[in-house]
Amino acid sequence: METCSPDQLAQFFGANATNATAAASYICGRFSAVSASLSDTSYAVDSTYLLFSAYLVFSMQLGFAMLCAGSVRAKNTMNIMLTNVLDAATGGLFYYLFGFAFAFGSPSNGFIGRHFFGLKSVPSPLFDYSYFLYQWAFAIAAAGITSGSIAERTQFVAYLIYSSFLTGFVYPVVSHWFWSSDGWASAANTDNLLFGSGVIDFAGSGVVHMVGGIAGLYGALIEGPRIGRFDHGGRAVALRGHSASLVVLGTFLLWFGWYGFNPGSFVKILAPYNSGSYYGQWSAVGRTAVTTTLAGCTAALTTLFGKRILSGHWNVTDVCNGLLGGFAAITAGCSVVEPWAAVICGFVAAWVLIGCNKLAEKVKYDDPLEAAQLHGGCGAWGIIFTALFATKKYVEEVYPGKPGRPHGLFMGGGGRLLAAHLIQILVIIGWVSATMGPLFYGLHKLKLLRISAEDEMAGMDLTRHGGFAYVYHDEDDPQKHGVQMRRIEPSGSI
Amino acid sequence: METCSPDQLAQFFGANATNATAAASYICGRFSAVSASLSDTSYAVDSTYLLFSAYLVFSMQLGFAMLCAGSVRAKNTMNIMLTNVLDAATGGLFYYLFGFAFAFGSPSNGFIGRHFFGLKSVPSPLFDYSYFLYQWAFAIAAAGITSGSIAERTQFVAYLIYSSFLTGFVYPVVSHWFWSSDGWASAANTDNLLFGSGVIDFAGSGVVHMVGGIAGLYGALIEGPRIGRFDHGGRAVALRGHSASLVVLGTFLLWFGWYGFNPGSFVKILAPYNSGSYYGQWSAVGRTAVTTTLAGCTAALTTLFGKRILSGHWNVTDVCNGLLGGFAAITAGCSVVEPWAAVICGFVAAWVLIGCNKLAEKVKYDDPLEAAQLHGGCGAWGIIFTALFATKKYVEEVYPGKPGRPHGLFMGGGGRLLAAHLIQILVIIGWVSATMGPLFYGLHKLKLLRISAEDEMAGMDLTRHGGFAYVYHDEDDPQKHGVQMRRIEPSGSI
Amino acid sequence: METCSPDQLAQFFGANATNATAAASYICGRFSAVSASLSDTSYAVDSTYLLFSAYLVFSMQLGFAMLCAGSVRAKNTMNIMLTNVLDAATGGLFYYLFGFAFAFGSPSNGFIGRHFFGLKSVPSPLFDYSYFLYQWAFAIAAAGITSGSIAERTQFVAYLIYSSFLTGFVYPVVSHWFWSSDGWASAANTDNLLFGSGVIDFAGSGVVHMVGGIAGLYGALIEGPRIGRFDHGGRAVALRGHSASLVVLGTFLLWFGWYGFNPGSFVKILAPYNSGSYYGQWSAVGRTAVTTTLAGCTAALTTLFGKRILSGHWNVTDVCNGLLGGFAAITAGCSVVEPWAAVICGFVAAWVLIGCNKLAEKVKYDDPLEAAQLHGGCGAWGIIFTALFATKKYVEEVYPGKPGRPHGLFMGGGGRLLAAHLIQILVIIGWVSATMGPLFYGLHKLKLLRISAEDEMAGMDLTRHGGFAYVYHDEDDPQKHGVQMRRIEPSGSI
Repeated sequence: METCSPDQLAQFFGANATNATAAASYICGRFSAVSASLSDTSYAVDSTYLLFSAYLVFSMQLGFAMLCAGSVRAKNTMNIMLTNVLDAATGGLFYYLFGFAFAFGSPSNGFIGRHFFGLKSVPSPLFDYSYFLYQWAFAIAAAGITSGSIAERTQFVAYLIYSSFLTGFVYPVVSHWFWSSDGWASAANTDNLLFGSGVIDFAGSGVVHMVGGIAGLYGALIEGPRIGRFDHGGRAVALRGHSASLVVLGTFLLWFGWYGFNPGSFVKILAPYNSGSYYGQWSAVGRTAVTTTLAGCTAALTTLFGKRILSGHWNVTDVCNGLLGGFAAITAGCSVVEPWAAVICGFVAAWVLIGCNKLAEKVKYDDPLEAAQLHGGCGAWGIIFTALFATKKYVEEVYPGKPGRPHGLFMGGGGRLLAAHLIQILVIIGWVSATMGPLFYGLHKLKLLRISAEDEMAGMDLTRHGGFAYVYHDEDDPQKHGVQMRRIEPSGSI
Repeated sequence: METCSPDQLAQFFGANATNATAAASYICGRFSAVSASLSDTSYAVDSTYLLFSAYLVFSMQLGFAMLCAGSVRAKNTMNIMLTNVLDAATGGLFYYLFGFAFAFGSPSNGFIGRHFFGLKSVPSPLFDYSYFLYQWAFAIAAAGITSGSIAERTQFVAYLIYSSFLTGFVYPVVSHWFWSSDGWASAANTDNLLFGSGVIDFAGSGVVHMVGGIAGLYGALIEGPRIGRFDHGGRAVALRGHSASLVVLGTFLLWFGWYGFNPGSFVKILAPYNSGSYYGQWSAVGRTAVTTTLAGCTAALTTLFGKRILSGHWNVTDVCNGLLGGFAAITAGCSVVEPWAAVICGFVAAWVLIGCNKLAEKVKYDDPLEAAQLHGGCGAWGIIFTALFATKKYVEEVYPGKPGRPHGLFMGGGGRLLAAHLIQILVIIGWVSATMGPLFYGLHKLKLLRISAEDEMAGMDLTRHGGFAYVYHDEDDPQKHGVQMRRIEPSGSI
Repeated sequence: METCSPDQLAQFFGANATNATAAASYICGRFSAVSASLSDTSYAVDSTYLLFSAYLVFSMQLGFAMLCAGSVRAKNTMNIMLTNVLDAATGGLFYYLFGFAFAFGSPSNGFIGRHFFGLKSVPSPLFDYSYFLYQWAFAIAAAGITSGSIAERTQFVAYLIYSSFLTGFVYPVVSHWFWSSDGWASAANTDNLLFGSGVIDFAGSGVVHMVGGIAGLYGALIEGPRIGRFDHGGRAVALRGHSASLVVLGTFLLWFGWYGFNPGSFVKILAPYNSGSYYGQWSAVGRTAVTTTLAGCTAALTTLFGKRILSGHWNVTDVCNGLLGGFAAITAGCSVVEPWAAVICGFVAAWVLIGCNKLAEKVKYDDPLEAAQLHGGCGAWGIIFTALFATKKYVEEVYPGKPGRPHGLFMGGGGRLLAAHLIQILVIIGWVSATMGPLFYGLHKLKLLRISAEDEMAGMDLTRHGGFAYVYHDEDDPQKHGVQMRRIEPSGSI
């Protein structure tokens, strides 16, 4: 909004200078107050929007916990749920201490941030607490993805080490590259755009999903498949999760939370594209929710019929995974593509997931949650999809200040966005390989990565976490039973 | 807000015309900018409100999934959850392609809309993406209700057919009649109000709940009760759901989501009734949340004590259903009645549900979720309740532009609203009978509706969905067990 | 925002009085309209913020239900879930009828409110419906805490009595003392601050958590431990909850809801501290979400390692309880402490909970949910913590109108806040002892409190609630089995 200039207004009022000045400054004073009020309103609206979006993203952690719990065998339920709780908890502390600083500390170089350690100098005109909270919820999602890949066979201490390293360092650095305005490949780095374009990974098909998925790939590759996953003839044997209800619960919670993840990534909703029009960033936010929905829905339906043909039954778990694959794929381009394109995105994502699962089976790769396939594979497809279908209009609205910037190849925008996006895929693979690969390998060499075969057969809940997750059939007198664990702690100890 | 007229202001400034004009247009320019900013703010606030309400309504789909899962036997859990996931997914695609167009395509005739196919011309000054998302979440709720009635005995392909038809055509047409401003019975069709009144079905006791419930009634009637539901002497035998925890989880999620369903139906929260006052549409939104809460709470307590007297125990499942019956009933009138009236609404709703269940048992009608009784019966009561208790003040505030329109009979508003509401009940019954009745009957005749007795005894999860939903007791070596299903797909196939 | 004075402006315009007056009143009329619009916006934004916060707090009731269900044995699952549903339902009715009036009825004396019975005179400039809804969601949380302490052995009728009394009277009176602007110890009672300070219990470590926890303490003490909780030698025997998945689900839902509980307690988000600045109440809201997160995360990690050392395994249930203890502790001071202080708060809270649990075991106190230890113990620590670490700046911003008021002892704010907070702890213990103690004792004497030993061994679900919560293994023909309960009601009865 233009500001009111008392000098100019006083000239208009004319001859009687004294009074004119007073009148003009009086009127302009009123306008300043209005302007300040509008600014306050704007902060309050955007903060409300961002905070509630952050809460939604946080609820995805519950979704992951339930999805993971339902997808593993009952004997490892407590183990995997504990990792999900701790992803959030360690993430909270480490992202506060240094993760956020590495990611968004500005001004900085293109590789890593270096301000805001321990939230020093936050809030600032640039970042408020709500922004930190939102980004924390993203950081813990990446770690949550990885824990699925290595479920049911990983030592707890290995988990604690890789999770901290991923949330505190590996992920923040990647998010700096692509999301910080200083990042070398960021679409917001308007002074110095990679290929004149930068990478449009709006909500993180690459930054979050590929990072989490590839980290999981290394972990699962290095420790190898679960006992019994492939029989002596090398045939794959399904180790079914113990509860489809938890799988569906988790999937719906992730869907719910994805409305914070994708539309929330605008960070602000009160941003007119042309002040006074019904069409503004609030419409783009809504459109993003719609593209997200359509991609997931299409992927779910494609998987339903695809798997019906391939496997002969209507499988709810597969449909859930297909749905999530659609979401992981649309995450990069959700804000810059048309709804019809989202349908294509979801359709292809379903086949990408089916293909990756086929391949995984062929190479005897065991990933209890299909996390590398789903988040890595569909995430990579989403990055390419964005480079093909991003529309000129939406790219310029969502990434303003640089009209004429490249957009999707199929939409007449040339190949520079695609080039940037292929680079993104390569550097993410490279960076995660260079960091998480050696970490998992080192843990493996130090015998810290995989649990013993005995423990794996018995289940980790019994051997490491104090008991089985479920006790459906109580006995009249629990004192009779040696297997009953102490809930508090063994007396006599300390 | 009045706009600023430079001409008029220039006249006030007087003789020195040139400067006066400049001053006036300068000042009015500032006011225009302020006005545009306020308009932007208004869009952002209302979009935030509507989007988060839509997310809440979406979470009801998770609620339905958990409620349905817990209410059926374990052997059919995956089947019913899959239908709930697919209600959302097929709904997403079909409502995008044509459902929304049938419902809200405007301008149109009173029977069916005919614009906005595939979201063409959206966003417009009339409808933004957020409005589509909100209405989609409503559409899938109707299908979710129906799937409960026909649970545990319906072929999956029948489900796919009726669900698409309901979400894509039957439901959109009804919502056009009562909610589109072009609808022949809509309270917003101020040029041509049915009985000078129109139907006040604010959030859809009729449009959503009766439609879903009566569709379910036809399905369940035509395929008949589950095997074992009535014994050889014709006595009802309860086929208990397999998990009360899932029932309570689902119920609470539905309660949570209903705060999007009812208060969210205002669509806008930034609408003053009298600009500058503390009392505006935001108060009406809050009041709607309160009436919703009170109706549900009263129905729950009434059911608790009512069923204690009738059956001798305190039954959590019955209390959950009573609660939901109270919500289904208050949904029509939630915005136009006083909180004390909501207490009456809930009290009666509990007895309506108890009565409908008695009747269902007497006529050997089997509805695993009590969906026809709950959504159909309590929904119909809610429509009548609204016609009795709607207050003049609230009706005029919530449905503005037509002062003196009819309100509740018991509140001195005459019988015209009641007449319109009786018409609503009749036409909904008629329309759903004329569409879903023949559909279910045709499927029945084509042997596509009900599964075989063998499949029903074995459970649909095992015969159609690849396995049992739960595996609590893992064996050390899964390869030994033939019943273990392949999670991915049988190798060798494709 | 300053208002526009036509008289003053007319003087500035000068000689030509008539026109000057018209011009001035014209301009000021425009400013009035803008001001009214800004006021409308402000109501809409704050109502949106408060309503969605209320929905989040309500979701905690689902969290409690799942946490409680998972923490008890399977045979008492339906019983405890029913109490959680009814906490919300009876709470809804009683808080509407008189609870809210006792708590916030104003003007009133310092002890108890006396207006707004049945929401009479609501909405008012002071309170809108959304405020009632928010406070209702708080009231039912207190009752939810208590039901955990007395789980698995309490008669249902006793539960109905104490729950109504707690939600309808005991809790509202406490909230009046500390939160109503008329309360004798309220930090908002700026005319008459206790020790010139008042109690800063921002979101209710004392008002909600201690009240619920101490009420539970009396109930559990008076009815004694569950059969089998301590063996003949007096050694504690863990009676493990039946589902760790439900415990984790409940914990994450409580975490999610706590973002409504703590940041939501600002009630308004559109409140500038200095109009036009990026820093305002929206920042404080975000900071509160951050302190809440950090306290919980730190407490979870501390518990993880602390219990690992003490008990030898990584326990997910303990981590969940530790997390919740951190939240209960930070609740009092969340808005007035720095993030780093929240880390200290959580660290100590974990040890407070471990210590309280040790003590409870020593004195043979049995609390199935550790509710008295967690909400009572950590809640009390939170009250003391606030008195030590509240910063001057934040106290003055969050509790405005009284610059120079006392703040945290360790932050150089003197001991008056600590004195007030010690008083708070004492009066809460006193008041709850004086009300809930006699109530539970009376029920005990009337033989209404504890169920029979036979019922306790069999489980309450079977004896009181019509059946077992879970039926995982269906039989082909349910009619064969006598134990199958009627879902509707026994025919022939009424």
